[in-house]
Amino acid sequence: MLVFILNAGSSSLKYQLMNPETTEVLASGLCERIGIDGKLIHESNDKKIKQEIEMPTHKEAIEVVLNILTKGEEKVIDSISQIDAIGHRVVHGGEFFNSSVIVNDDVITKLEGLIPLAPLHNPANIMGIKIAQEIMPGKPNVAVFDTAFHQTMPASNYMYAVPYEDYKDYGVRKYGFHGTSHYYVSNEARKMLNKEDSKVIVCHLGNGSSICAVRDGKSIDTSMGLTPLEGLVMGTRSGDIDAGVLSYLMEKKNMTAAETVNYLNKKSGLLGVSGISSDLREIIEAAASGNERAQTTIDMKCSRIRKYICSYAGSLEGVDAICFTAGIGENADLIREKVCDGLEFMGVEIDSDKNKVRNDKNREINKDSSKTKIYVIPTNEELVIAQDTYKLTKAL
Amino acid sequence: MLVFILNAGSSSLKYQLMNPETTEVLASGLCERIGIDGKLIHESNDKKIKQEIEMPTHKEAIEVVLNILTKGEEKVIDSISQIDAIGHRVVHGGEFFNSSVIVNDDVITKLEGLIPLAPLHNPANIMGIKIAQEIMPGKPNVAVFDTAFHQTMPASNYMYAVPYEDYKDYGVRKYGFHGTSHYYVSNEARKMLNKEDSKVIVCHLGNGSSICAVRDGKSIDTSMGLTPLEGLVMGTRSGDIDAGVLSYLMEKKNMTAAETVNYLNKKSGLLGVSGISSDLREIIEAAASGNERAQTTIDMKCSRIRKYICSYAGSLEGVDAICFTAGIGENADLIREKVCDGLEFMGVEIDSDKNKVRNDKNREINKDSSKTKIYVIPTNEELVIAQDTYKLTKAL
Repeated sequence: MLVFILNAGSSSLKYQLMNPETTEVLASGLCERIGIDGKLIHESNDKKIKQEIEMPTHKEAIEVVLNILTKGEEKVIDSISQIDAIGHRVVHGGEFFNSSVIVNDDVITKLEGLIPLAPLHNPANIMGIKIAQEIMPGKPNVAVFDTAFHQTMPASNYMYAVPYEDYKDYGVRKYGFHGTSHYYVSNEARKMLNKEDSKVIVCHLGNGSSICAVRDGKSIDTSMGLTPLEGLVMGTRSGDIDAGVLSYLMEKKNMTAAETVNYLNKKSGLLGVSGISSDLREIIEAAASGNERAQTTIDMKCSRIRKYICSYAGSLEGVDAICFTAGIGENADLIREKVCDGLEFMGVEIDSDKNKVRNDKNREINKDSSKTKIYVIPTNEELVIAQDTYKLTKAL
Repeated sequence: MLVFILNAGSSSLKYQLMNPETTEVLASGLCERIGIDGKLIHESNDKKIKQEIEMPTHKEAIEVVLNILTKGEEKVIDSISQIDAIGHRVVHGGEFFNSSVIVNDDVITKLEGLIPLAPLHNPANIMGIKIAQEIMPGKPNVAVFDTAFHQTMPASNYMYAVPYEDYKDYGVRKYGFHGTSHYYVSNEARKMLNKEDSKVIVCHLGNGSSICAVRDGKSIDTSMGLTPLEGLVMGTRSGDIDAGVLSYLMEKKNMTAAETVNYLNKKSGLLGVSGISSDLREIIEAAASGNERAQTTIDMKCSRIRKYICSYAGSLEGVDAICFTAGIGENADLIREKVCDGLEFMGVEIDSDKNKVRNDKNREINKDSSKTKIYVIPTNEELVIAQDTYKLTKAL
């Protein structure tokens, strides 16, 4: 079986062609600058290519990809008909979806109804689904949601302390995101722990970052909220902030609410504080050469992660494993060390040497004496999408 | 020596007359509905009286109070001249003031400059000072700030992850409030611990609530932010919330930013979620008779406090004492129990029986085996104001 995995953004399209039974990835890539000019980065047959190629809309982008998959040197299949199903990453499933689903008209109607909650993401995701239906008629499409894994949170964690009617009437609550990654990593951790009733904390630290408390395989709390703005300090997002700052900045800088939310999403975070970059690697370099603001930025990033880890340990009444994943989590040993340093009082002891080893495997980086395991677990959201798509469509 | 302590709100005035050397309180009371009609609640000579009495402005209110202090049955002094100094509670001292100060023209100019950061509070506080200067010319006035104690926070805790210029140009940072209470309670805790290098967490749980991490007597983190909206779930304030909720509600409910901030400050919190009351006692009663939303409200309140305690334990790298203070903190044993329950993994063990005892003394409510002490410490902000006023003015 072959699953075509699509992650459609507003001007981008990530894809993979995967055999979910063997987990073999036949091809993967990224279309960028769709609707502007068009750029393709593609990998298959152990070869990576970059191409500038006209992509007026996502439809042409998907056609370009299907073309390269089936023709020429990069070809990995003979015909589109060999693709058995398409798995879509969908950002917002609201309270409708607590697991992946086969797309039908009702699902699309619900996704459209959720656009106000994810105005930047759901429209692109829906477009990706509709184009796939058009280009590959008759093939099943599966929607895999960023929010679904967090639907197990208790009300006391997903509710905001606003009038109850705002939850009932407008869906104001914490949804959380990165669910596919939190599910994958916490599940890997549970296998490593070999423990059914497990208390796991997953730190997904990429350009977007979130953290999740997972009890016995179920998300019970997470740091992103109604929108992906809340929580950790991210590449360009402020994370947690007094809501009063938003109105204060609106007044001081004469911006509308939408402009200010955009400012907190796009101009803030690591970029805003450091004034250097949204890329933590550049900030770490600057700090190493004595830049004080860069050092403060790193301290903020780590202090916030640490505070979340401890607060979630409180919610879980202890913690068996702390997991680091995604770009920063998998690669930045300095950040992992700073985050764990000083948590000995709750049984967390990182091993500096093990922490410095870099590879792409699941690995344990705590001292033998540590009560809590510390894991680095490379995330694999595409695998979850492919496997969910396989599970839901194999019997069709 | 006698200090007249004033806490001027927009339509209210709290006061005490205290001897800071003996800590004896000669009189205390509250003027309410100033500028509307006027109501006085006064206590002196072991007698409590309530009076409706015209108070068109704060000036008349202070005159009413000075009158009752010096004349009639409630009289405690013969003449205003026996008052040596006036101590004022001032909400916002910004980055100018890290301790209490004798008021002069420069101080007033700075307080006026801080009005944008505390538009509801600083104008009333300044008015209180000016009226005191007018009515009691020649007497020294001292300003005691809610923010001053938190000025020791490190940048990594007081900075928000917004562009650095917003901190520099507009003072966007975490200031924290309830500093006088956090100082008083943490200082009492340090005496009880009898330990110089102490790690103390203070939970000030009243209608407004905040929590503070205190290391060696210095605030290193606190839950209120640029404004008192951030942090714990309060009587009518939402506390922590995705900043995206503010803009989402503005759009959905067609409110301005100012209206929405007001909504999050005045209509949210315990009141908003429960739909019953901003008073936790009524919500606890409702939950006891099976009201589910009331139970969720209590769960949210406690879960948020617990998460902050744990996150601050992380920042402190352990915790010697957790202190509960203010209305809810001093009286609600149910809340203290729920907050501490499940924190055994980090050495926190509450003693259910000790926790149920009610009195107005500093007391220890942990089990003997608990690594962390749990204290109930009645707060006394007025004493701090009186003592600071005494210290600064006794040599004049």
